[in-house]
Amino acid sequence: MKEDKIFPLGDMPIEEFRENGYKMIDWITDYLQNIEQHPVLPKIKYGDVKKGIDNSPPVNSEALQNVFNDLDKILMKGITHWNHPNFMAYFNSTSSGPGILAELLSAGLNVNGMAWHTCPSATELEEMMIEWFKKIFKLPENFGGIVYDTASTSSMHAIAAAREQLAHLKIREKGMAGRNDIPRLRIYASEQAHFSIDKSVVTLGFGLEGIRKITVDSKFRMIPDKLNEAITEDKKNGWLPCCVVATVGTTSTTSVDDVDEIGTICNAEKIWFHVDAAYAGTATILPEMQWIFKGIEKADSLVINPHKWMFTPIDYSLFFTKKLDVLKRAFSVSAEYLKSAGDEVINYMDYGIQLGRRFRSLKPWFIIRYFGAEGLRSRIREHIRLAKMFVQLMEKSNDFELIAPAHLGVVCFRAIPSNIKSEDELNNFNENLLRKINKSGKLFLSHTKLNGKYILRISISGLRTKEEHVIKAWKLIINTLKEIK
Amino acid sequence: MKEDKIFPLGDMPIEEFRENGYKMIDWITDYLQNIEQHPVLPKIKYGDVKKGIDNSPPVNSEALQNVFNDLDKILMKGITHWNHPNFMAYFNSTSSGPGILAELLSAGLNVNGMAWHTCPSATELEEMMIEWFKKIFKLPENFGGIVYDTASTSSMHAIAAAREQLAHLKIREKGMAGRNDIPRLRIYASEQAHFSIDKSVVTLGFGLEGIRKITVDSKFRMIPDKLNEAITEDKKNGWLPCCVVATVGTTSTTSVDDVDEIGTICNAEKIWFHVDAAYAGTATILPEMQWIFKGIEKADSLVINPHKWMFTPIDYSLFFTKKLDVLKRAFSVSAEYLKSAGDEVINYMDYGIQLGRRFRSLKPWFIIRYFGAEGLRSRIREHIRLAKMFVQLMEKSNDFELIAPAHLGVVCFRAIPSNIKSEDELNNFNENLLRKINKSGKLFLSHTKLNGKYILRISISGLRTKEEHVIKAWKLIINTLKEIK
Repeated sequence: MKEDKIFPLGDMPIEEFRENGYKMIDWITDYLQNIEQHPVLPKIKYGDVKKGIDNSPPVNSEALQNVFNDLDKILMKGITHWNHPNFMAYFNSTSSGPGILAELLSAGLNVNGMAWHTCPSATELEEMMIEWFKKIFKLPENFGGIVYDTASTSSMHAIAAAREQLAHLKIREKGMAGRNDIPRLRIYASEQAHFSIDKSVVTLGFGLEGIRKITVDSKFRMIPDKLNEAITEDKKNGWLPCCVVATVGTTSTTSVDDVDEIGTICNAEKIWFHVDAAYAGTATILPEMQWIFKGIEKADSLVINPHKWMFTPIDYSLFFTKKLDVLKRAFSVSAEYLKSAGDEVINYMDYGIQLGRRFRSLKPWFIIRYFGAEGLRSRIREHIRLAKMFVQLMEKSNDFELIAPAHLGVVCFRAIPSNIKSEDELNNFNENLLRKINKSGKLFLSHTKLNGKYILRISISGLRTKEEHVIKAWKLIINTLKEIK
Repeated sequence: MKEDKIFPLGDMPIEEFRENGYKMIDWITDYLQNIEQHPVLPKIKYGDVKKGIDNSPPVNSEALQNVFNDLDKILMKGITHWNHPNFMAYFNSTSSGPGILAELLSAGLNVNGMAWHTCPSATELEEMMIEWFKKIFKLPENFGGIVYDTASTSSMHAIAAAREQLAHLKIREKGMAGRNDIPRLRIYASEQAHFSIDKSVVTLGFGLEGIRKITVDSKFRMIPDKLNEAITEDKKNGWLPCCVVATVGTTSTTSVDDVDEIGTICNAEKIWFHVDAAYAGTATILPEMQWIFKGIEKADSLVINPHKWMFTPIDYSLFFTKKLDVLKRAFSVSAEYLKSAGDEVINYMDYGIQLGRRFRSLKPWFIIRYFGAEGLRSRIREHIRLAKMFVQLMEKSNDFELIAPAHLGVVCFRAIPSNIKSEDELNNFNENLLRKINKSGKLFLSHTKLNGKYILRISISGLRTKEEHVIKAWKLIINTLKEIK
């Protein structure tokens, strides 16, 4: 072989790209068309995928066909199929045709939207998509925004901005450690808040003691009076309240904290008020679900993840704040080499930890235009209808109980067969039931623990999930129960 | 119109996806084939893109053809073409055919690799790719790793782990604020370190005073003796040294800190030693460039970004550490609903701030197999050759001077026309020269400031950059100089 055949320079020949591009489109088309032929959860052990992959990188170039072959032979047996209509665990994030094409375009252009001039279209489309989302979610006019990767990142930025708001402490300059001139700082969230809040608090240097968990009511909502008491007590004991996080759509039960009432407390106390609506925020595109955002104008910041329930390939997390200037103070550290355009432009790199920024805004641009706002509404509305239908099916059976209000796409329930009496046995029974269901490969549910009870959770937010899939899920659940009871 | 025509449920019909997928592949094929017909930097003002986009989201579904049309009509005029062979600013990250296809596949599968069982293939392929990279970069066997989005994120995790290593301070539990039982903490990096280190330090709560910049020598490398002095002085003054960051390939000049010598200091002092090789790390796939990693076994952590110089669509940042357990302690906060598989599996969500994790490892799997390790080497070697060729061209002219050693793909230089005497005038002249070059649309260079001098920077790391593009760049530079001198 001639050396220039083995090691040519440059990219893949362009017609080879086109040919393999078509092949990949065909592969994904087939995959999505036949997705129900795959077990939702793969039936493998840890290590089964790894052992199919060479220990060392290939020295020489391989035909891309080999990679396609190994995709089918090695990787596919270890895929958990998030696009499967019976993936009903967690919050089921699914991709969509227009979203996939937008990601493809983003990879093809491969721009880095760190500053305006490094890709004006990336910055300006991001600005416009934030305006679109503000309108679609009916958010206050004075909210600005930025896109991050995940809700964990968004909430970390919220809490960092909350800290920066306490400018008199000069934490940006002097830090937090080894100073006796600043108090201990506290963040508040309900017991049901997502653990990313704990992680943010640890990362930012507040420590686990820096988060105080507020008791929830019987519907798993933060009790505002308890928040008030905690703040009062903390202040008396020398803590400085820094940030309150309300959750609109908790991970376990989709319970909705009272944004209005908590917001009133925060505003009165001048505490940064962050709302984590990563999942449920999407539901506010429905007029009938706008109630979950009552009082949202009191929030300083808000996160909603279109990659959770708006058919957007992971990742795309929307962060809104009415205090972009504070966020910018918390995260802008300038570098000579990026100075170029004037002060009037937005350089999104100044508003977050990451410098490199993918062209994520192509995704909502494709998705919202393709489906239309009403098309998105009809799909979200259908998911909520299907969840309520599941509750109705379940309520006809004496073997199950509903554990939390099901007002969105998630139902929390557990089996309570009459022959089982103790809570411990019930927990074991439900854990066993879940294991057997998930092992079937026909359905994937997740679980949670609430008041010591092992709870099953069904989540309906997949773009490909229809009524028949919910009925199929219900039948599998009752049949499995019959088998093991 | 019937309602089910206007608002059907589910995804795009599958054959419509295939058809539009082919169309997008064709679009990207044409784009890459004709990339040189675009101006590298777009000739627009802030707001020119925005004004082409509707203020409100569409109510009804639109044909995807409209989006394709607007892509050409509205977005393309605001694209900075990172794939253009004469994009020679910053570190030019370019995509590649196999990388684009891997991103497409990732969006199609749309798995979330947060835990092993949420997609075993995502976790296990990530593990194997880390093994491949360890071999290709000749890293020590005891390094483990994880993939993050960007180097900024990677370095933040390094410094957070460094803090966690000081376990006796109980910062994870008690935080940093309002305690008189812990000292102030200090991070060290050279004056030439990337500003993401400053940003990490601020985010983590150390404050800007928590970073001490160490003087560099005439080749812009951290002076180890100065580091030693700083540590000694700080300890005397009650600071606790927490982390030292060496840079292998600084952003301005690609200078290489002495990893071996700095590592010796850190190991003796038991200070976490982080190496930021985001750009230059890729060069260590060449045996002749392995010297830049001499002493790397002394590092506690290391970041290398294949999305910078290994033809990987943004984002893909490799983080290596020999103390995965410390990293895990810093970032694991467990949640009931994600408990599922046993303790023996890796759940990457426990090692970082983000919970959601894209299937990024498909990218190196496609890229390394398609190009082969030797194919990657020949491309990186060619870039370094072209940079040296540029230096030779420049050295034949009396109008320019080289500002820093050019041992990688970047050359730092400035014009010194004989008629200009003062440094201020030289700075203005070079700034003007750069502005004129970049305005041409034929070439995009960036700049930096070194010792008060305004410096031009040419970076050769684009997959489509050939000798002819470097010659064209040089001719444009000298011709522009002649015009304005």
